[in-house]
Amino acid sequence: MRIRLGQNNYGKSRVRLLRVSRASSSHEIKEITIAIRLEGDFESAHTIGDNSKILPTDTMKNTVYVLAKQYPPEPIEEFSAHLIEHFLTYNPQVARAEIECTENLWSRIPVGGKPHDTAFMRAAGEKRTSLVAATRAAAEFSAGISDLVILKSAQSGFEGYIHDPYTTLKERSDRILATSMRAEWVYVSEGIAFSSVWHGVRKLLLETFAEHDSLSLQHTLYAMGEAVLGNFEQIQEIRLSMPNKHYNLVDLQPFGLENDNEIFLPIDEPHGLIEATLRREI
Amino acid sequence: MRIRLGQNNYGKSRVRLLRVSRASSSHEIKEITIAIRLEGDFESAHTIGDNSKILPTDTMKNTVYVLAKQYPPEPIEEFSAHLIEHFLTYNPQVARAEIECTENLWSRIPVGGKPHDTAFMRAAGEKRTSLVAATRAAAEFSAGISDLVILKSAQSGFEGYIHDPYTTLKERSDRILATSMRAEWVYVSEGIAFSSVWHGVRKLLLETFAEHDSLSLQHTLYAMGEAVLGNFEQIQEIRLSMPNKHYNLVDLQPFGLENDNEIFLPIDEPHGLIEATLRREI
Amino acid sequence: MRIRLGQNNYGKSRVRLLRVSRASSSHEIKEITIAIRLEGDFESAHTIGDNSKILPTDTMKNTVYVLAKQYPPEPIEEFSAHLIEHFLTYNPQVARAEIECTENLWSRIPVGGKPHDTAFMRAAGEKRTSLVAATRAAAEFSAGISDLVILKSAQSGFEGYIHDPYTTLKERSDRILATSMRAEWVYVSEGIAFSSVWHGVRKLLLETFAEHDSLSLQHTLYAMGEAVLGNFEQIQEIRLSMPNKHYNLVDLQPFGLENDNEIFLPIDEPHGLIEATLRREI
Amino acid sequence: MRIRLGQNNYGKSRVRLLRVSRASSSHEIKEITIAIRLEGDFESAHTIGDNSKILPTDTMKNTVYVLAKQYPPEPIEEFSAHLIEHFLTYNPQVARAEIECTENLWSRIPVGGKPHDTAFMRAAGEKRTSLVAATRAAAEFSAGISDLVILKSAQSGFEGYIHDPYTTLKERSDRILATSMRAEWVYVSEGIAFSSVWHGVRKLLLETFAEHDSLSLQHTLYAMGEAVLGNFEQIQEIRLSMPNKHYNLVDLQPFGLENDNEIFLPIDEPHGLIEATLRREI
Repeated sequence: MRIRLGQNNYGKSRVRLLRVSRASSSHEIKEITIAIRLEGDFESAHTIGDNSKILPTDTMKNTVYVLAKQYPPEPIEEFSAHLIEHFLTYNPQVARAEIECTENLWSRIPVGGKPHDTAFMRAAGEKRTSLVAATRAAAEFSAGISDLVILKSAQSGFEGYIHDPYTTLKERSDRILATSMRAEWVYVSEGIAFSSVWHGVRKLLLETFAEHDSLSLQHTLYAMGEAVLGNFEQIQEIRLSMPNKHYNLVDLQPFGLENDNEIFLPIDEPHGLIEATLRREI
Repeated sequence: MRIRLGQNNYGKSRVRLLRVSRASSSHEIKEITIAIRLEGDFESAHTIGDNSKILPTDTMKNTVYVLAKQYPPEPIEEFSAHLIEHFLTYNPQVARAEIECTENLWSRIPVGGKPHDTAFMRAAGEKRTSLVAATRAAAEFSAGISDLVILKSAQSGFEGYIHDPYTTLKERSDRILATSMRAEWVYVSEGIAFSSVWHGVRKLLLETFAEHDSLSLQHTLYAMGEAVLGNFEQIQEIRLSMPNKHYNLVDLQPFGLENDNEIFLPIDEPHGLIEATLRREI
Repeated sequence: MRIRLGQNNYGKSRVRLLRVSRASSSHEIKEITIAIRLEGDFESAHTIGDNSKILPTDTMKNTVYVLAKQYPPEPIEEFSAHLIEHFLTYNPQVARAEIECTENLWSRIPVGGKPHDTAFMRAAGEKRTSLVAATRAAAEFSAGISDLVILKSAQSGFEGYIHDPYTTLKERSDRILATSMRAEWVYVSEGIAFSSVWHGVRKLLLETFAEHDSLSLQHTLYAMGEAVLGNFEQIQEIRLSMPNKHYNLVDLQPFGLENDNEIFLPIDEPHGLIEATLRREI
Repeated sequence: MRIRLGQNNYGKSRVRLLRVSRASSSHEIKEITIAIRLEGDFESAHTIGDNSKILPTDTMKNTVYVLAKQYPPEPIEEFSAHLIEHFLTYNPQVARAEIECTENLWSRIPVGGKPHDTAFMRAAGEKRTSLVAATRAAAEFSAGISDLVILKSAQSGFEGYIHDPYTTLKERSDRILATSMRAEWVYVSEGIAFSSVWHGVRKLLLETFAEHDSLSLQHTLYAMGEAVLGNFEQIQEIRLSMPNKHYNLVDLQPFGLENDNEIFLPIDEPHGLIEATLRREI
C-alpha cells in the first residue's frame, strides 16, 4: 500500500489585535481576529518530521503585530493582502496563503448627544469579515457579514409546499421570519473601496430583507442576493447562509384563549438552514 | 444523625417568549427569557416523594404564556409582578416567588432613513434584566443591564499600587480600560416608571464611564455607581460587576520597533474582576 | 445624600495552570483554573483612586505560578489554602480571601491494555471543584463536582402533583430523568483526606442516583444529599443544583404509530431547576 | 445582467433524538443530533417563491422520528442511509441528500463494581460523527470523531524550523503536545461493520498519538493517519484537523526560580491549526 498526502495546510488561528490610532484627539479603534493558513511544500514535515521548511505559527503571529505597526489594518482586506504578500515573498516553500479576518464593530459612546472622542461601546453582535487568498499568480478578495440577527413581523408567509404523510406543519400567510444571517461575497478584482462597498452591501441586505414580500426564506434569500449583484458590479458572486430561527405560535386553546398571532415561542433547535450562492452570468 | 432540609427552591428556567403587538401598522416586539423560582412548603416532596404540593414546572411555563396574553409583558418588571401575584394567590404552599427576566433588545431596520414598521434587527449584545421577588408581605424590584461591552482609549491609568516580590506589572498613566459591565440596582418601591428610569440609568452609566478620569477600575466603578445613586432617588442600591478585559501592549522591541501605545493584544483569560455594591445611606 | 460602599471584592479569574510531575518515568499531570477574590480595606481605592492598598490582580496571577512551583497543587483544597495564607500574611489590608478551583480531569491513554506513562486524554466533561475561604480567624473548606451529566431510563416517575387550570403535563410512572448535576459540600474542618473523600462522594452520588426509586427530581436530589451526609461525617452540609434536562416522549400518533416509551426529544430549554441544601442537625 | 443560482441546499439542523431500547431488563440508549441537507430542483422556490417542490424542514424533522421508530438508529451510518433512501424515493425533485449525525457517548454508571442496567453517565466530551451523502447513482459513507482532547507530556519536540527576523520561539526537544482532535474518514464502500471499525480506529488513533516520537504536530498527525490507512482497508481516505492547544512554559526567572519543565500556562488563543488529508494510492 502507498499513501499520498492530499490537501493540507497549517497556520495560526485566533490572533487578536486592537489598534488605537491617536492621529487626532478623536481616537480611532480597530479590533480584529485573524486566521492564517499556508499551503505549500510541507510533505517532508509530515512524513519524516523535517521542519526545515516550516515557518512556526508563533512567527506568523509575531508577523501580524509587526505588520499592524507598519501598515494600518484598515481596511481588513488590504491588511490581509499585506500579510499574504509578506508570507509569499519570504517563503518560497509557500504556494498559497489565506487570511481570514473578523472585525468586532465598535461605536462611540454618545455624551450629551455627541459621540465621545475616546470612549467606545460594542455596536452590535454582528461582525465584518473578509477572506483573502492568493498564490504568486492570482488573488481573490472576499468580504462578508456574520451574526446579523434580523426579524420580520409582517410580509412573510409559507404556503403551497409539499404535503406528505409526515407533514403536520400548518400553512401560514402571516408568520414571523427570523434569521442570523451570514453573507460572503467575492469581488471581481482587488483595488475596491472595500469599506464603503461593505457598508453599502450591508444597508442593501437589510433594506431588501425589510421590504420583501416573503413567500419563503429561500425566496427572501434570493431577493437579497439578487439586489446585491444588481447594485454592486464590483461583486461577482454572493453566498448567503440563513438558519430559520423559528418563532412558533403558542397554542393557547387548552386555556380557552385565542392566540391572535401575538404570543410566540422562540426555539433554537431544531432549525431550518437555507444556503445558496448567486453568481453574475458572464 | 438527623438531617435538615435547608434553603431550597425549584422552578422553570429559560422560558422564552416573543410578543408582537399589532395595535397599529407599526408593530412592537418584545423578546424575553424568564426564570421562575418558588420557595415554600416542599419538605415532604424531598423527603418522601409526596408531590401533592408541587406545581409542575411545566405548568409554570404554561402560566407565562397565558399571562403574556392577558397582560402585555411591558415593562418586564410589571409582568414579573403579575406572574408572582398569580403564583402566590393560587398556591398557598408557596411562601416566596422570584422572577428573573432577560430582554433581548431589538431596533427597527432603517429603510431610506426611516425606521421600518415591521422589520427589526438585534440592537446590541447587551440585555435588559430584572429581578422581582416577593412574599405575601413584601416585594422587591430590581433591574439591570448585562453584557454591555465598553472601552476607554484615554483618561485611564493604573499607578501607585503595591509592589511585592511577585509584581512585574508596569505602572501606566495611559492604558486601555475595557469591561463587559453587569449592573443591578434595587428600587426603593414599586410603581416606578421602570422603562424610562432604565434608559436613564443606562445613559448615565455610559456617560460616566466615558468622561471619568480613571485611576483604576475600582475608581471608575465607584464613580458610575455614585452617579446613579446621586441622580435617581428611586434607586436605593446598585451593584456593579466588571471584569477587567485586558488589552496588553504588544512588545515590538524584539523586532526593532517602538510600540507607541498603538498595538494591543486583547486577552480573555486571565482577567481581573471587580465587584462592589453602593448603598444610599439612610 | 451620603453613599456607603457595601460588600466589595476584587481579584483575578481564569488563572490557568498545568503542572507536570516527572518524579518517575510515569508522569502525573494536574490542570486547574483558579479564581481569587480578596475583601478588605479598599474604600479609598474606590472613592479617590488611591491604589496604595491595591495588590494588582496581575501580581495575584504571578503568585499562583510561584506557589505552584513551591507547593504541588495537589489536592486543590490545600493549594488554595497555601495561596490564601500567602495573601493574608503579606497583605494586612486584606480581611478575607476566597479561592475557587476548577480541575479538568485527565486519564491515561490505554496502550495495549495498559495506561500509558506520558499520554493522557480528557476523562469526562465533569470537573472537580473547590472553594476555600478564610479570614485570619477562621477558614472554610468546600469541594464539589460540576457538569456531571447523568440519566435514568427506569425507576423514575412524576405523579400526584397539583393540577390547576394551566396544567397540561401528563402524569407518568415511567419517565426519563436526566440532569447535569452540580454538588458542593462543606467540610467540618480542614485536614481532611480531600481527594479520597471526593472520589467517595462522587461514587456515592452516582450510585444513589442509579438505584433510587425516583418519585420526582426533588426526591432523588434529597436521597443523594442524605446518602452523602449519612456516610461522610467529614461533611456538614451539601448543596445540590439539578436542572431537569427534559426528554419528552415524541407524539407519533399523527403518523399512525405508537411510541412505546422508546423515542424521545431532548430539549435544553426551557428546563426545570431544582436546588436544595441539606444540613447535618447538631 | 443575468444572475444564476449556483450551489444551494436546504434542510433541518439540530434534530435531536434519544432512543431507549427496552428489549431486555438492561436498557440500551442512543442519543444523536442530526442535520439534513437536500439539493435538487429548487430554482423556482428561490426566484419566484414557488413552494410546490419544497418539502418543509418541519416534515424532515418528523420523518427522523418516524424512521427512528421503524429502524433502530444503530449504527448511525445505516440510519442515515435509511433517511436518505426515504427522501430520494419520495421526492423526485431531490437530486442529492446529505445526513450528518453526531452521537453523544454514554456509559453505564457502575454500582458495586457492576454496570447498572438503566442508569447512565456521559462518557466523555468527545463525539462519534458520521456523514452519509447520496444521489440516486452513488453513495459515500464517512465517519469520524470530534472533540477528543489528548496530551503528551513526553516524546514531543519542535526544532530545526525556519528562523526569520520575526521568530522569537525557542526550539525545544521536550514540550507539551496537546490537541482537540477532529478526524473524518471515508469508507471504500457501504456494508462495513461501522461500529466495530469506529472503535478500532479510535483505539489506533489514541495509541499512535501516545507512542509517537513527535518532531512536530504535522509529523504526529501524519503518523496517525498513516496507521489508520495501513490497518483499515475499509478506509480510503482520512482527514485530520488538529488545533495546537499550546501549553507555554511559565517564566519563573523574575522570581528567582527555575521552571524545570514543570509549570505550564494553557492558552486557548491564539492557537496553531494543522489540517491534512491522507489518501490510499490506488
